[in-house]
Amino acid sequence: MEQPKKKSLEKLLHMTRQHKDMINIMPLQTGSILTPAAREALIEFGDGYSVCDFCTGSLANIPNPPIQEFVHELLPQFLGCDVATITHGAREGIFAIMHSMARPGDSIIVDRNRHYTTSVAAERLGLNLIKVPNSDHPEFKIDVNNYIPLIEEHKPRMLLLTYPDGSYGNLPDTHRLGEIARKYDIPYIVNGAYSVGRMPVNMAEIGADFIVGSAHKSMASTGPAGVLGMKKKWQEIVLRKSESHKNKELELLGCTLRGVPLITLMASFPHVVERVNQWDEQVTKAQWFSGELEKLGFIQLGEKPHKHDLLAFETPMFYEFSQHVRERGYFLYKELKERGIWGPQPGMTRNIKTSSFAASREQLSYVVDSFRAIINKYS
Amino acid sequence: MEQPKKKSLEKLLHMTRQHKDMINIMPLQTGSILTPAAREALIEFGDGYSVCDFCTGSLANIPNPPIQEFVHELLPQFLGCDVATITHGAREGIFAIMHSMARPGDSIIVDRNRHYTTSVAAERLGLNLIKVPNSDHPEFKIDVNNYIPLIEEHKPRMLLLTYPDGSYGNLPDTHRLGEIARKYDIPYIVNGAYSVGRMPVNMAEIGADFIVGSAHKSMASTGPAGVLGMKKKWQEIVLRKSESHKNKELELLGCTLRGVPLITLMASFPHVVERVNQWDEQVTKAQWFSGELEKLGFIQLGEKPHKHDLLAFETPMFYEFSQHVRERGYFLYKELKERGIWGPQPGMTRNIKTSSFAASREQLSYVVDSFRAIINKYS
Repeated sequence: MEQPKKKSLEKLLHMTRQHKDMINIMPLQTGSILTPAAREALIEFGDGYSVCDFCTGSLANIPNPPIQEFVHELLPQFLGCDVATITHGAREGIFAIMHSMARPGDSIIVDRNRHYTTSVAAERLGLNLIKVPNSDHPEFKIDVNNYIPLIEEHKPRMLLLTYPDGSYGNLPDTHRLGEIARKYDIPYIVNGAYSVGRMPVNMAEIGADFIVGSAHKSMASTGPAGVLGMKKKWQEIVLRKSESHKNKELELLGCTLRGVPLITLMASFPHVVERVNQWDEQVTKAQWFSGELEKLGFIQLGEKPHKHDLLAFETPMFYEFSQHVRERGYFLYKELKERGIWGPQPGMTRNIKTSSFAASREQLSYVVDSFRAIINKYS
Repeated sequence: MEQPKKKSLEKLLHMTRQHKDMINIMPLQTGSILTPAAREALIEFGDGYSVCDFCTGSLANIPNPPIQEFVHELLPQFLGCDVATITHGAREGIFAIMHSMARPGDSIIVDRNRHYTTSVAAERLGLNLIKVPNSDHPEFKIDVNNYIPLIEEHKPRMLLLTYPDGSYGNLPDTHRLGEIARKYDIPYIVNGAYSVGRMPVNMAEIGADFIVGSAHKSMASTGPAGVLGMKKKWQEIVLRKSESHKNKELELLGCTLRGVPLITLMASFPHVVERVNQWDEQVTKAQWFSGELEKLGFIQLGEKPHKHDLLAFETPMFYEFSQHVRERGYFLYKELKERGIWGPQPGMTRNIKTSSFAASREQLSYVVDSFRAIINKYS
């Protein structure tokens, strides 16, 4: 049998992260930078299964650390739902809903801007995915009234809306889709991976049946971790218990987050509860940041004025520069890194995605100045 | 809307673990105490999605940190398989195999000593679970030849064997079941949640089709994290890609471990590769520990002589004591905790489960002395 190479093993002993402590404008990461309390909890509960010391058969009912209170009281209040649980992430929550609520061949109507995992979860289960179109370039907006003809045509088992989507940061009218879902009596899922934990969002007010959130996208937590909220009437389907193991939920395979992601989610939660109240300031900051970048020639995609920190831009000048430099598309990543900025995907120049959520106005001013300097350098 | 209570939120800011740094004989935890390298990596990559800085669409192909080399080279060598991937844990690996390989109503033959999650995964999918009996009290052994009549009767889609089981730490004859599986041409899964990372185990030598391991049980990693190995021929079924998203594996919903559990698994891996070579010493230590406890009147269950660090005992004396003290069953937990020992489930006295894996001989001697002192105190 071939043995692992010594050199390969040694590399694993000293892994470091190049972008640690840089100004972070990377959309996947700006909502999940740990709080000091989460960093402490990470170390305290680092060993495998150490959240489970006082388990008597159900993760969500562990009294110490206070998982029970977190899952059964704090989370439902925060999400505006009757019943909540914890998952490995938003996608796994959506899969659990789909798997328990639908049968192969059933239709589900989703927005064209959905995250890829919505498609993948549906495909894994053999569901028929019906897509509500967006308004196309440059705003790519979803008008939820366009669900109506598709509902009438396809008699779907469920509706799903991504709020906001991860490509443009557009915020479609969740409340209006709640009215439509109620009128046609179809279960309605809100994918809040980029909203739950960043901005106020309340399932009951929306009129949705389910809401999923991503702790490692938007709740200041390490991954993998997510939350799932629902109306009480769906509990007996989605969170049904095993016949052979009476306290184990089938769709969760008994327990999900048996480790630190749950503890960082909990330790950051008080901060997350607070920060959603500052959402207006986040939106103002995002609009200002977008405006400053447009002055440099960036073309913002998605809704304008923008209402979320996720910002996609067309940046034709960077693509043009990339055609004339040795590093090709990587020149932009390199230039930003040298300036202590981490964000746009390495190699990408024609379009870039950013998030203004984690950086202060001062830091974002520096980012704008840096983009300007790069443009001047290569022009 | 009801707001989260301030007192409840404050509790989350200062969560501590009572059993940290105690002598740990808790079976779920002794194999997943982090290495120093893993503790460093935990902090370095604590923020959500920070392993994904250099992702170009597939978690298992990220070059930095060296996830690609770990998943595609080191893990297959370690597991003795053709193809490996990472999962949220052993149960999620088993579910992915079942979901992709079987249809509702199909039969799967499993050992009576299986982990509960095997039953729960099968029930979630509507599979028919056929159980090979054990030899009952006191050894509860699985004779894998008993799979044969059940195979002939039920024409199962798959076989699964738990190696070892989590109740008694019994090690059934995996190789013999490999022969049987080959003869009847039935895919064969080894659940190595308590072996992979503790002891040498090699899928190809066993003659199995699949092997799953648990990083937060036996690979010195925080949870949730696991590994899944398979023969090449099953890759196109279990790890089939999405039609709409060509680099996303359906059964993994694209990506699984988007956070620190993966990094601790990797950082501890060099140590884990080493420690499985000291397995003989672990077995000698376990047998000695069991013998010492039997001298105190404990009755060891499971195979004798025992070949694994998981040890279950009948402890009638503790049950007897519990009937006469105010704390009832919790007196044992309290007495051990006062002596700096953490292991048997709080409240349990009639039967206790321990693991000798993490403690040194000196520490285990102290554990034996402590049990003796408790017996003397209450007799």
